[in-house]
Amino acid sequence: MEYSELVRILEDLVRLPIYGIIGKLKDTPILLSTVEGKVSISALIGDKLRVLTKESIASSAIPKSHLDFVPFTRDIEKGKELHSIHIVNLKGEEYEVASPKLRIFSLAYDEKNIAFIGSSQSESSLYVIEGGKIRKIANVPPFSFVTDLNGEYIIGSGVLKGNPKSQEFFVADLSGNIRIFTPKDGSINTAYYIKDNKIYIISDYENPGESYWVYTFDFQKYERVEFSEKDIYNYKAVELYYNPEDLLIIAKRDGQSKLFFNGKMLNTLDGTISGATKIGDNVYFAHSSLATPYRVYKLNLRNNKTEVIISNKEVDIGKVEYVKIRNGDIEVPTWIIRANKPTKIGIVYVHGGPWAEVDNGWDLLIAPLVYAGFNVVAPNYRGSTGYGSKFNLMDIGDPGGGDLSDVVRARDYAIENGIAEKIGIMGYSYGGYMTLLALGKLPDKWDFGIAGASVADWVEMYDLSDSFFKSFMEVLFMAKNLDLMKDRSPITYVNNVKAPLCIIHSQNDTRTPLVPVLRYVQELQKGWKTFEFHVIPNLGHTIYKIDDAIDLLLPALIFLKKLFG
Amino acid sequence: MEYSELVRILEDLVRLPIYGIIGKLKDTPILLSTVEGKVSISALIGDKLRVLTKESIASSAIPKSHLDFVPFTRDIEKGKELHSIHIVNLKGEEYEVASPKLRIFSLAYDEKNIAFIGSSQSESSLYVIEGGKIRKIANVPPFSFVTDLNGEYIIGSGVLKGNPKSQEFFVADLSGNIRIFTPKDGSINTAYYIKDNKIYIISDYENPGESYWVYTFDFQKYERVEFSEKDIYNYKAVELYYNPEDLLIIAKRDGQSKLFFNGKMLNTLDGTISGATKIGDNVYFAHSSLATPYRVYKLNLRNNKTEVIISNKEVDIGKVEYVKIRNGDIEVPTWIIRANKPTKIGIVYVHGGPWAEVDNGWDLLIAPLVYAGFNVVAPNYRGSTGYGSKFNLMDIGDPGGGDLSDVVRARDYAIENGIAEKIGIMGYSYGGYMTLLALGKLPDKWDFGIAGASVADWVEMYDLSDSFFKSFMEVLFMAKNLDLMKDRSPITYVNNVKAPLCIIHSQNDTRTPLVPVLRYVQELQKGWKTFEFHVIPNLGHTIYKIDDAIDLLLPALIFLKKLFG
Repeated sequence: MEYSELVRILEDLVRLPIYGIIGKLKDTPILLSTVEGKVSISALIGDKLRVLTKESIASSAIPKSHLDFVPFTRDIEKGKELHSIHIVNLKGEEYEVASPKLRIFSLAYDEKNIAFIGSSQSESSLYVIEGGKIRKIANVPPFSFVTDLNGEYIIGSGVLKGNPKSQEFFVADLSGNIRIFTPKDGSINTAYYIKDNKIYIISDYENPGESYWVYTFDFQKYERVEFSEKDIYNYKAVELYYNPEDLLIIAKRDGQSKLFFNGKMLNTLDGTISGATKIGDNVYFAHSSLATPYRVYKLNLRNNKTEVIISNKEVDIGKVEYVKIRNGDIEVPTWIIRANKPTKIGIVYVHGGPWAEVDNGWDLLIAPLVYAGFNVVAPNYRGSTGYGSKFNLMDIGDPGGGDLSDVVRARDYAIENGIAEKIGIMGYSYGGYMTLLALGKLPDKWDFGIAGASVADWVEMYDLSDSFFKSFMEVLFMAKNLDLMKDRSPITYVNNVKAPLCIIHSQNDTRTPLVPVLRYVQELQKGWKTFEFHVIPNLGHTIYKIDDAIDLLLPALIFLKKLFG
Repeated sequence: MEYSELVRILEDLVRLPIYGIIGKLKDTPILLSTVEGKVSISALIGDKLRVLTKESIASSAIPKSHLDFVPFTRDIEKGKELHSIHIVNLKGEEYEVASPKLRIFSLAYDEKNIAFIGSSQSESSLYVIEGGKIRKIANVPPFSFVTDLNGEYIIGSGVLKGNPKSQEFFVADLSGNIRIFTPKDGSINTAYYIKDNKIYIISDYENPGESYWVYTFDFQKYERVEFSEKDIYNYKAVELYYNPEDLLIIAKRDGQSKLFFNGKMLNTLDGTISGATKIGDNVYFAHSSLATPYRVYKLNLRNNKTEVIISNKEVDIGKVEYVKIRNGDIEVPTWIIRANKPTKIGIVYVHGGPWAEVDNGWDLLIAPLVYAGFNVVAPNYRGSTGYGSKFNLMDIGDPGGGDLSDVVRARDYAIENGIAEKIGIMGYSYGGYMTLLALGKLPDKWDFGIAGASVADWVEMYDLSDSFFKSFMEVLFMAKNLDLMKDRSPITYVNNVKAPLCIIHSQNDTRTPLVPVLRYVQELQKGWKTFEFHVIPNLGHTIYKIDDAIDLLLPALIFLKKLFG
């Protein structure tokens, strides 16, 4: 395959728009989409997509249906993730509200105020913007997120009691009084919505470690939310998200999600639902699968007819399979996507996070790999979401330990089952970390490695991190455990690397900074290891524009082409 | 322009074959070419090109017309320039002769023996291979080259008297006795051919600093070679190369070369002649210009008719212009190639060497830049070849001084004359060095910079270099002058860099090693300068395969696309 054909494939796939429905403003469905090549807030007006925001955005608050505007953040430091806050309305008019230049991972609003948590190098705090003025309400534990704001209360969740294995929720008032709640010590809770003086939470406290349900909390007691139809109970979801206004549930198990209205399963294809909202009798939802790009549908609740509102290109990616690979006393849920043209070259694709997953949804990193002709094996190693909180927390205190063994087991499975004769490992962020660690600790297992936005040295990274990411590491390692961090750092094993390695890193990455990776590269060069290295400018950890995805992926595809033709 | 279109343009242009005629074996013209995507020795058999060598080669000896084989070198350390020696014959049969794993920049042969100069970290020596056995004949000054071997004598040239501003020639016998000669102390001499007990040299001793002529030396006296026809005298060549067997002269002035038979000018187009040889009444020559890719022609001396033997694609690169830009008391001969689609974005292209030039010949780095839509300004700064030895030696003791001022003057000229409103600087090797230095010393002059295989720190590079490149630096700086080296090192000025910068480097480069550049990049990152950085594996300083050229150029073109669309 010529270089130009490779680049064309990449461009074609990466430019296929991504759609996620995040709610509605008035009677207008609101989406995040990449339809114009950048992440934007869009609206479905007359069932046609209209982009509201002009330049790319970083994140959005959940829209409030009784309002006609929604706040969002922009990264104003070329990828370094220092944010400004803006609002956009249904007419596409934008206003900048504030420019605190903090790392803002969560924000919420009502008709009067905006609340957000902002992190700096030294601290994280809850802020409110009232009448255009920013006011710090209170310090908060850095690993926390604000989710809703409703007149007097601000709610959110996070690791609030200092126990890395549990999550609590908080209720704050505008004076800065914060109360922390949990239905049961040690449980995992997310509070996400205030309605009628009740707080809606998703919790695993009734089935600890295994599955979640939705509850309301009225400051006295917790009540299970029940539904009139039975389908949701028979579905045995592991995770679910419930919108009490629309009575819509998105429930998930085994990497697939289904849509329910008041408990009744709606007719959707295999894959994942990326958001839904109800306008009158119509339910709008976005859907994709590993093999099918995102589409937006409208389902009429009265006659159950579904139509495609926003279509997408038909692609023939490859054959998708879901297996559970045994590794000791756990099973590793793994997605395998075989290229259409038979091949014996495999790539173990390690997702980032680590508290994330590969599910049956369109994946911007996986699709080009398969389309370029490789069999991709994507394990959900312990620590992944989607399989219950017990599985999700198995990596706490053990990053690069059990989770790495799961990745290696998936690799061995691929070899044993003839999926690949030559096999490499690739990942971004935590996936890039695992790639470097795997290449150094088990050098004979891999024929190549591709590491994007990776961690080379946890210890050096800790010193460079802001309060949020220091906290992230203290949760991941159970404490500021420098010895363990060193033992689990790829730079400790760099001399053992054998396989050719492609390292891709954004210059302005402030989550997984470049500086330790530069040092790792110097060590690779000292040892005359075969590697290539690409530093991309004006980019940080997160992709806001599709061209950025091409910048990150193209070196990887060229590297693979040079290895395998 | 989409990425894929950019890549296609690059591939199309870079894959246009390059041809250079290096002599003949028996009655068969012998060429170096890149017709199969790699540097190879080829033959014109029945006026059709037949590739003789299988894998890419590094360099070749000059073929001897009475023999049917020629020796050549291969880089056997993935670009690190440690060579093995092979021979290939007219049937395309190859034999490995020896694998000394030294840096071999020159080799010569006769029917029995092969002579070469090989450099290691510690020394450079003249070797002979007799009956398959390598024998070291003598140590030689590292900056020297062997050119011919004829039974009892081995000849060559270089900086043999320790004076960086003069070059002498040597005659060695197989026992290791070396005699050093010069027609006049301080002159520049190259001995290149032994015939009838006479040594042919090219020297400037009769017109010191200004132009060269051909002489013979019989160990007693020097004699001017004279020609029957007058054209060569009227041409007033600055440089010339004379083949006494064919009576062919390639004479050069003002960046163009012409072909002469026994002094009579043959009918060739503007551009440069990349080698010629005579078979009977036919003169075969290769030709290109900045705007026309290489072609091979056959000219019949009897009727003066010329036909194209090996054609090439027609390209419409742009409009070529040659100007002499005044800078103080010198003129800087400069080639300007304007893109077809009018643009105000210019690139000052700085050639490597520094003892090399941009002439009116097809240039693999310049053509894609112009075709991608940029106006290229290519100055022959002081130190360049092609304009006499005085001009050539003006950079000795002053690298990054006067030559940099010439490059800056060319930049200013481009702005003053409306050739560009935005202008950047780009170069490979010494050109990469000048790019980094210019960006640091004159940060306001440049809108961007692209530096390939650059020097970031002469001092650190000196320690990493082998005997040849230590010697190269001692000539360039007039001595091992560490203070001057530091003053002229880009890393000294890295904090002043303003323009976005793209740095491309081969991992295995042993001429301009990666390690100092890694340190330079760390300094860039400390200062949060905007840059991108690409390390290419399995590649050294020299390109042996066309795919390597694509690896080096593609990041540069993508960088420019992101800057200017």
